Amino acid sequence: MKNLGVHPYVFPMPVLLIATYGKDGKVDVMNMAWGGVCASDMVALNIDEDHKTTENLKLTKAFTLSVADREHMAEADWFGIGSGNDLDDKFERTGLTAVRSEFVNAPVVEEFPLTLECEVVEMGETVSGYKVIGRIKNVKAREDVLGEDGNVDVAKLHAIVFDQVHNGYYEVGAKVGQAWGDGLKYSDK
Amino acid sequence: MKNLGVHPYVFPMPVLLIATYGKDGKVDVMNMAWGGVCASDMVALNIDEDHKTTENLKLTKAFTLSVADREHMAEADWFGIGSGNDLDDKFERTGLTAVRSEFVNAPVVEEFPLTLECEVVEMGETVSGYKVIGRIKNVKAREDVLGEDGNVDVAKLHAIVFDQVHNGYYEVGAKVGQAWGDGLKYSDK
Repeated sequence: MKNLGVHPYVFPMPVLLIATYGKDGKVDVMNMAWGGVCASDMVALNIDEDHKTTENLKLTKAFTLSVADREHMAEADWFGIGSGNDLDDKFERTGLTAVRSEFVNAPVVEEFPLTLECEVVEMGETVSGYKVIGRIKNVKAREDVLGEDGNVDVAKLHAIVFDQVHNGYYEVGAKVGQAWGDGLKYSDK
Repeated sequence: MKNLGVHPYVFPMPVLLIATYGKDGKVDVMNMAWGGVCASDMVALNIDEDHKTTENLKLTKAFTLSVADREHMAEADWFGIGSGNDLDDKFERTGLTAVRSEFVNAPVVEEFPLTLECEVVEMGETVSGYKVIGRIKNVKAREDVLGEDGNVDVAKLHAIVFDQVHNGYYEVGAKVGQAWGDGLKYSDK
């Protein structure tokens, strides 16, 4: 094996979009790969304090977190390039549509396939930097990503995967196994 | 859009293996999907306090975190089924090979393609449950997953993706885009 030094090389990483309202009701969306589920009803966002998003979170105590899909990869990527601190029309440039969540004081971007609507539980500096913990109040899915059981079929999400090593985006391929299934061959039962 | 209620539905999630030594030098490995990078040199593990892994972490203050690949999917899945609290041979049943890390007091499972070697920085109860923060001291990669630039080629990892909705494992498909690239069309520059 080769030693590569210190790098944040976990794979896969998600491509997540954090959407918030500013003090003027303005929609801001930023792109984040370092974060996700931290409890059965909670998510963790590892974002710097100087983001527009953080300013908005302090004000509204709410956000939505959406999964980026292949069809909106350029828009999702832009949300990681432009800064809401510098641009007044960062969101509007994409032509995407935001509507107010019925569950929290934050916008839902309708084009993304899967969105968690969250309230801020805690935010502040930690040993690993600025962190926001949100409680999931509802999950919203586009009708076309639902399977026959009425629940999300992840194959239909067309979710993209972030490659931290070379900044690539990958698609998700075929289903190859079943959790709490493939490993049973090592069990006594 | 359809409202689905409260669920931890972020996608993709990684399939990560946490490897530790017990007080007798015994290797334990557990499977985790809720966690990952939380800073450029840190990872967060969201695991319960009653795991064998947590007991070991309190003792050794070190762990390794590996990416599960398709070739070792059954082994990785087993590490999420069996408990080191109940089984004395949980790791040995898989036939995998553990060697001591040169960087931290924890085992490296040689068969996994990519491993982060970490020291515990902080562990304890938080607003979102028990959490462990680790500092990355080194990243190790199998030689066969390196690209021509000597760095990790994520396509060669054959990493698997966890589907929280239906407990499926998926493979990663083709590269479809470039971060800080595809979104530039919305920039002024």
